[in-house]
Amino acid sequence: MAVFTPVSEAQLAEWLRGYSVGTLAALEPIASGIENTNYFVTTSQGRYVLTLFERLPAEELPFYLNLMAHLARHGIPCPAPIADLSDRYVSSLNGKPAALVTRLKGRSLESPGIDGCAELGALLARIHLAGRSFPAFLDNPRGPKWWRFAAGAVHRFLDADAQRQLDEELQFQSRYRFPDLPRGPVHADLFRDNALFEDGRISGVIDFYFAGVDCLLYDCAVCANDWCLVDPRADRRLDERKTRALLAAYAAVRPFTALERGAWPVLLRAAALRFWLSRLYDYHLPRPGMLVHAHDPEHFRDMLALRANGSAAWIE
Amino acid sequence: MAVFTPVSEAQLAEWLRGYSVGTLAALEPIASGIENTNYFVTTSQGRYVLTLFERLPAEELPFYLNLMAHLARHGIPCPAPIADLSDRYVSSLNGKPAALVTRLKGRSLESPGIDGCAELGALLARIHLAGRSFPAFLDNPRGPKWWRFAAGAVHRFLDADAQRQLDEELQFQSRYRFPDLPRGPVHADLFRDNALFEDGRISGVIDFYFAGVDCLLYDCAVCANDWCLVDPRADRRLDERKTRALLAAYAAVRPFTALERGAWPVLLRAAALRFWLSRLYDYHLPRPGMLVHAHDPEHFRDMLALRANGSAAWIE
Repeated sequence: MAVFTPVSEAQLAEWLRGYSVGTLAALEPIASGIENTNYFVTTSQGRYVLTLFERLPAEELPFYLNLMAHLARHGIPCPAPIADLSDRYVSSLNGKPAALVTRLKGRSLESPGIDGCAELGALLARIHLAGRSFPAFLDNPRGPKWWRFAAGAVHRFLDADAQRQLDEELQFQSRYRFPDLPRGPVHADLFRDNALFEDGRISGVIDFYFAGVDCLLYDCAVCANDWCLVDPRADRRLDERKTRALLAAYAAVRPFTALERGAWPVLLRAAALRFWLSRLYDYHLPRPGMLVHAHDPEHFRDMLALRANGSAAWIE
Repeated sequence: MAVFTPVSEAQLAEWLRGYSVGTLAALEPIASGIENTNYFVTTSQGRYVLTLFERLPAEELPFYLNLMAHLARHGIPCPAPIADLSDRYVSSLNGKPAALVTRLKGRSLESPGIDGCAELGALLARIHLAGRSFPAFLDNPRGPKWWRFAAGAVHRFLDADAQRQLDEELQFQSRYRFPDLPRGPVHADLFRDNALFEDGRISGVIDFYFAGVDCLLYDCAVCANDWCLVDPRADRRLDERKTRALLAAYAAVRPFTALERGAWPVLLRAAALRFWLSRLYDYHLPRPGMLVHAHDPEHFRDMLALRANGSAAWIE
């Protein structure tokens, strides 16, 4: 479960007096999520998600919340932070920084098809276009610097083969920095469970707490590596039709540059590497109180090996 | 009808390329409204209202749109302006300043009952609380200065009785300025047709283009004079139960001050005067191209006479 800091109805009702959202009607813990405490909150006005930030550095919170607010006011269907009566998106609840955001309708798809991948691609491109005018900067917190930190921390837990694979990939990635690729705010964690669908249309993108500034194409690679697999459990190659649908729908909104086409295989590897590392880290170095099931790191190790073997040519 | 400036689908599709709201699916003119050109717009993303500002001074537009954006991000169910890719709420369409805002669900009530008046009162108070942190200022454009201007313009069209009633009311109001009443942004035009309901709950407040900074209690008076009448067509006295419901629900969110209780009869008269004057003005001095049915000024003249006769004690 993902309630690290319990909140009572009485505490929340009092806290909500600092907001303009009416009176508390219902409070329900959310089981998923591994980083924060989350509740569904219903008031006389509407439906919201309450998040208590357990581990995120306080200085990063404005980036995430202001980015969500920025995207929401550009028409992107993402959680819109609610400002309190002092005009702040973050205030304190039970000693933790806490935020209230709108709750979106829809459900995530376990196995999105070609249409779902196209919906995602178009929305991702619109997020990137709307993000261009976002003025704040936060270097992708799970970018190359973090890869090196995490690799150093997990190295001793790996067998020789895995150590070699990791070292080689870090070495490979260090030769590619792509300063000329279009950059901007990226979601950086837009897995299937972070997108909501309703009546076949994408109705929301949630969980911006891994966002940062990076190559826009990196966001596409993270998505392709989760949305477009032949079989997420057994065959981590990219399904050509799904990948084509995602990239074509994206390009119809924001056309790719020639440089991006060339960088695609490298960024697919970078995206696989980042999640292999974070899963290794969470598996071998779980944080205290982290009761959540650790995801299997092998999924991304296998994917990285496939991507490194060159099975990921540009297929828009 | 209220389409002063026609917009074609081709023009709108091109204009929407400057936004992050997907592609145009449908465009439908809105018949109501007397100040601006309005269309319902449906895109692959969602449902919006497009407004072309026909007469509002360009320098006032930021106040209205930023106020709506401010209230929306505080959780108030009002149209949220959509920022374009240059991060502006207002851009140009067919030579007119134009804005895209979210379209709210729900329908206005012809005859709201006690529950509807209570819903309105609570939401109005929440609007006023959320508005406290709004930093911009625009003096109520239909405040005392405008009364004097409008009275001067329509005077010659009135018979002697009406002239005397108008002169006496302006004289009466000039003795009450209430510098100590709580002030802030007010909607100032929250008639029944500017509130939407869904499943018995208030789901939206629209049309902020008469908003300005004034006594918060003035907003309550405008509402009571429209929502709480014994019979809007035949008996303009305040229905005690409806008025009590509106004011009690309001006070549960923002308690009234003693000064406000004392000022109530004067502000009810002020609110009746303001709409008597604007209806006289639109009736006797219609603007070119104003095809809309002019509302009957007598409704508010009769109401003003009733309020001036002291039938409006505080009844929370």
